[in-house]
Amino acid sequence: MRIAFTTELPAEGLTRLQGHDLYVPLNEAEILVSTFDKRVTAAMIASAPDLKLIANFGAGFNNIDLDACRRRGIRVTNTPQPVIEPTAELAFALMIDIARRVSEFDRTLRNGTCQPMAVMNNLSHSLYGKTLGIIGLGRIGQSLARRAVASGMQIIYHNRHRLPEAIEQKYEARYVDFQTLLQDSDFVSLNLPYTPEVHHLIGKQELGMMKRTAYLINTARGAHVDEQALVEALQSGIIAGAALDVYEREPQITPELLTMPNVVLSPHTGTGTWEGRIAMCENVADNILAYVNSDYKKMNIIV
Amino acid sequence: MRIAFTTELPAEGLTRLQGHDLYVPLNEAEILVSTFDKRVTAAMIASAPDLKLIANFGAGFNNIDLDACRRRGIRVTNTPQPVIEPTAELAFALMIDIARRVSEFDRTLRNGTCQPMAVMNNLSHSLYGKTLGIIGLGRIGQSLARRAVASGMQIIYHNRHRLPEAIEQKYEARYVDFQTLLQDSDFVSLNLPYTPEVHHLIGKQELGMMKRTAYLINTARGAHVDEQALVEALQSGIIAGAALDVYEREPQITPELLTMPNVVLSPHTGTGTWEGRIAMCENVADNILAYVNSDYKKMNIIV
Repeated sequence: MRIAFTTELPAEGLTRLQGHDLYVPLNEAEILVSTFDKRVTAAMIASAPDLKLIANFGAGFNNIDLDACRRRGIRVTNTPQPVIEPTAELAFALMIDIARRVSEFDRTLRNGTCQPMAVMNNLSHSLYGKTLGIIGLGRIGQSLARRAVASGMQIIYHNRHRLPEAIEQKYEARYVDFQTLLQDSDFVSLNLPYTPEVHHLIGKQELGMMKRTAYLINTARGAHVDEQALVEALQSGIIAGAALDVYEREPQITPELLTMPNVVLSPHTGTGTWEGRIAMCENVADNILAYVNSDYKKMNIIV
Repeated sequence: MRIAFTTELPAEGLTRLQGHDLYVPLNEAEILVSTFDKRVTAAMIASAPDLKLIANFGAGFNNIDLDACRRRGIRVTNTPQPVIEPTAELAFALMIDIARRVSEFDRTLRNGTCQPMAVMNNLSHSLYGKTLGIIGLGRIGQSLARRAVASGMQIIYHNRHRLPEAIEQKYEARYVDFQTLLQDSDFVSLNLPYTPEVHHLIGKQELGMMKRTAYLINTARGAHVDEQALVEALQSGIIAGAALDVYEREPQITPELLTMPNVVLSPHTGTGTWEGRIAMCENVADNILAYVNSDYKKMNIIV
């Protein structure tokens, strides 16, 4: 097969594709490996007459014009499994970092503005005993919940549909409506996929329902949050802080966020571990090989 | 009782001491509430003729001249219980932070030196699937292990004495000798109390036994580590990084550490959460009340 890529990926994750033509120009490609940070537009699809499969590197696929794929009968696959642990891990890392002020302390120790070491200086907040509200208790949300339960947190969640009791019991998770989740959580974590229906799910009104002591964690998609409303809520003490891996206008970050002490920022790297990248490559390769072998059951099919 | 304090503590944690004289001068005190960051010397003890109890705020008590207390028959208590969860939480926070480069990303996004957001930029390492070696699998070490297991890590440990099988099974923890722990761990966490016998437990030779990809986490006591040897190991790539809450010459931090990218630093704040501080105050108050009531079984007695 002739396979184009939107991004060069690590060769060690692609050894299963030996024998295929990798990195061909898009207009010659039968398969396109797209990465979640690059848009695949209708025009790009039109420029590739032989294209039959888009094997997306990533779980989210709002980078791809799916309607254009449907019209041409082009299959689209994603890599939902290997993103789970790295993304949940980063969500947890951001939550514990903002609560325990780790990035802030590291930064202020380095620039000489940290309070002197003393018993009543440099205090932060424990996760232990607090309530984590997860919006989107899917695979990533559950992986986050597992870590949070082991950290002594209580879990409440909101999904479109309530989960089976067995899953709720596993995490001692309580289903609540959206407003109750916002009102009762000490930490609110967004772990749902992006669709236009959830654009600005968290805006001024929702931030206003949160506790003034609460933190917002977003490792899902930037457009879930009205970033300007978030900046204003952080400036005026409507909520205590935010930890963000994703932004509404990536790669732009609203400049005010870059100067706030009650914020932790990471550069959209939820899945960005070496181990995760290799596993995602292997998942892409497996989707391609399954397609080649017409073994559709083994593919992670979106379209 | 007339109670002196080395540090002013939050009143809301001391309500149980209502009716006693708080914050009297040391030379009039029957009880001294000492905090872990302030030394209690033989000279101080000699200056307090009525002193009968030192109720230390903290689990570690290497700040107190215990021999001087023994000679005078002064009792010493500590607060081992409320420090467990906050300290284990910070150890975990530092470990996940150095692995996922959270503080580094936050700092470099703010100062404009972060790599652009892209699939193969800003990669870090997963905890998931890695081996955590805990030196000192006591109460804090086990609390750390609980979080690590939920994060998909394997636990190996070294103590002076092997733990009962039931505890090992709880964390699927494998007992190994000290050298094996250093050689096999992806993360080495120090969770043992300080005594002169473990001074510089981690020096040049021990750092040399660790994997070049490994990270050292220290939330116990600074003197466990030869800080100069650590700086050299970090500079020359003998280990991958370090995350430190404690330092050999607090409040001094070896200046080179403050400029290294592969280091995360916090200002000795393992127990430093608001929730933890209140709980430690209550534990101090309970030790004092138990002493007053001669209810020695309820005291956390050191001497």
